[in-house]
Amino acid sequence: MRAHNFNAGPSALPTEVLEQARDELLDFQHSGMSIMEHSHRGKVYEKVHTEALQLVRELMDVPSSHEVVFVSGGGNVQFAQLPLNFLSPGRVADYVVTGGWGEKAVEEAKQVGRVHVVANTKGADGRFIRLPAESEHHFSADAERAYVHVTSNNTLEGTQYHAFPAWLKGPLVADMSSDILCRPVDVTRFSLIYAAAQKNLGPAGLSILVIDKAFLASARSDVPKIWRYAAHAKEGSLLNTPPTFAIYLVKLVLEWTKRLGGALAMERRNTAKANAVYSVVDQHAGFYATSVEKSARSLMNVVFRLPSDALEQQFLKEAEALNMIGLKGHRSTGGIRASLYNATSEGSAQALATFMNDFAQRNG
Amino acid sequence: MRAHNFNAGPSALPTEVLEQARDELLDFQHSGMSIMEHSHRGKVYEKVHTEALQLVRELMDVPSSHEVVFVSGGGNVQFAQLPLNFLSPGRVADYVVTGGWGEKAVEEAKQVGRVHVVANTKGADGRFIRLPAESEHHFSADAERAYVHVTSNNTLEGTQYHAFPAWLKGPLVADMSSDILCRPVDVTRFSLIYAAAQKNLGPAGLSILVIDKAFLASARSDVPKIWRYAAHAKEGSLLNTPPTFAIYLVKLVLEWTKRLGGALAMERRNTAKANAVYSVVDQHAGFYATSVEKSARSLMNVVFRLPSDALEQQFLKEAEALNMIGLKGHRSTGGIRASLYNATSEGSAQALATFMNDFAQRNG
Repeated sequence: MRAHNFNAGPSALPTEVLEQARDELLDFQHSGMSIMEHSHRGKVYEKVHTEALQLVRELMDVPSSHEVVFVSGGGNVQFAQLPLNFLSPGRVADYVVTGGWGEKAVEEAKQVGRVHVVANTKGADGRFIRLPAESEHHFSADAERAYVHVTSNNTLEGTQYHAFPAWLKGPLVADMSSDILCRPVDVTRFSLIYAAAQKNLGPAGLSILVIDKAFLASARSDVPKIWRYAAHAKEGSLLNTPPTFAIYLVKLVLEWTKRLGGALAMERRNTAKANAVYSVVDQHAGFYATSVEKSARSLMNVVFRLPSDALEQQFLKEAEALNMIGLKGHRSTGGIRASLYNATSEGSAQALATFMNDFAQRNG
Repeated sequence: MRAHNFNAGPSALPTEVLEQARDELLDFQHSGMSIMEHSHRGKVYEKVHTEALQLVRELMDVPSSHEVVFVSGGGNVQFAQLPLNFLSPGRVADYVVTGGWGEKAVEEAKQVGRVHVVANTKGADGRFIRLPAESEHHFSADAERAYVHVTSNNTLEGTQYHAFPAWLKGPLVADMSSDILCRPVDVTRFSLIYAAAQKNLGPAGLSILVIDKAFLASARSDVPKIWRYAAHAKEGSLLNTPPTFAIYLVKLVLEWTKRLGGALAMERRNTAKANAVYSVVDQHAGFYATSVEKSARSLMNVVFRLPSDALEQQFLKEAEALNMIGLKGHRSTGGIRASLYNATSEGSAQALATFMNDFAQRNG
């Protein structure tokens, strides 16, 4: 029996995708070889590669003004690679900090160049529970600003941007690692989007980027070639040997996403899943506590606490007995976190809601 | 039927490894989840991770003076990450250039700092067919030398170091991407060894490093944390989300390597495979031409030409009809290349030798 997988990443993959990968693992399309044994310069793999890039373009509605690029490594690599490409001497990179991952992005950018924190919603208690209002933003001067970085979804804290208002200055860069393709997003609003694959797109070890071509043209060329986004874009993400099996799996996940109806269908499905869980939290507001501002609640990560550590331990233990995995909050925040990424089924979300309701009635 | 896979990388994986991966792809050890759906912070994955690191240590006979580290990305990333860690301002990095990959390593290092080419065996015709003699080496001054970089096996050109003589100065760094674990190597001879996984160890998207702890302590700490080897070593290669499925596959390949008898057994097997092919080349020396110096012949990549382009095309066509894949030489060198990495079976090497013999008799 498949577990109810609420892991924060690496996380659930669609069962159909795993079944297809299993069925063709030793013999991809009658080639007598696994897809991972094929050369990245051969026709068989190149078709998979091109289709994966094309599916990102189609499902995210990426216009010809933007490139789609695959690079190896996850979000932490992008925290460094982004400023290496765009934070030239004499420029400053603006960061809107709304969670722990944004803080990490700032720390890495500081190793590369000058960083300015535009806004920071960290409370006096060290916690992030909201997104900043327009008035809290203090951008650096237009002439010296390299880019403005936001984290679209805060996995640790359970907050998410539900819109990217016009007053958010640019060139706008978003870390969408934990909510890419969870809903339709107007990519033309962004100069660069990056996302590690291991939440909504596939296995760990790969990042997907969407980059405005004009912005890309402004990137530094005096850094190692392997870290230049422009070099990867120019070679169709075949500058070096890419993580071929990870890209193959991303292609399968994107095909599954398309079969279900694409970004809009994902948004409906994700909204239903999140509502199922949030509604139990709200119904038992004296038992399940969430400090996250309602307007900033994440569709992807539902974060809450129980009245005591002992009850949280009991909750996790009973959940595991019901085959519900990955509900323990991040070591930095504690509590409970249910990650409801695209591949987590509505049945799993419903099972969790039912259990939460029952647990509250028994212990509340 | 499984193909005879002579791809230069990504390349053949042991059939048993693929079968095991297939059989447990949807349900790893009765967890109800694929290994790639498990959290990298969970007990199930952590056991796989620790065992993979331990198997590298065991099979390469790595003493406690050296760290074993996994990082995402392939050899091209290491071309940049290595100098970023060790080529400080005021120092110079020495490179022994014996092939196209060494040339690439030099180009990337130049983006980071000062580079000195110790020796370069490129001929007047632009080709590399040999390794340099001691007298050809001109090292930079001991006081300013950051490291000495060699490429242990040249995949494009079919040459390989069969020993690392004592007069090769240090700190010695080797790119062993295409011959790691093809034979026993005294790792204490090296300050750092790196290898992309996709030849002898697993799928693309991961590199394995063995680093002397004292050398590691001399690395720069004023670079982005995600690119600091020391930060990865300190966290047991769990600094960030690692490419978990790739590491799982590496573990399976290492277990297979161990079952077959380890590095020494690999050397026997690889020697038998290479001899099977080289002996046909030598028997038909008027037909199959190889300019590689005999003492430098690679166990991993057998490179040769036929009398004409037309015969090479015919050779590749007939080979493919016999289910032999990946024999076309690299686009930069042309000709024929048979890559005989660890997972390529003796049966495949023998089948190639038989075909080559037959082809020469028919066309010679």
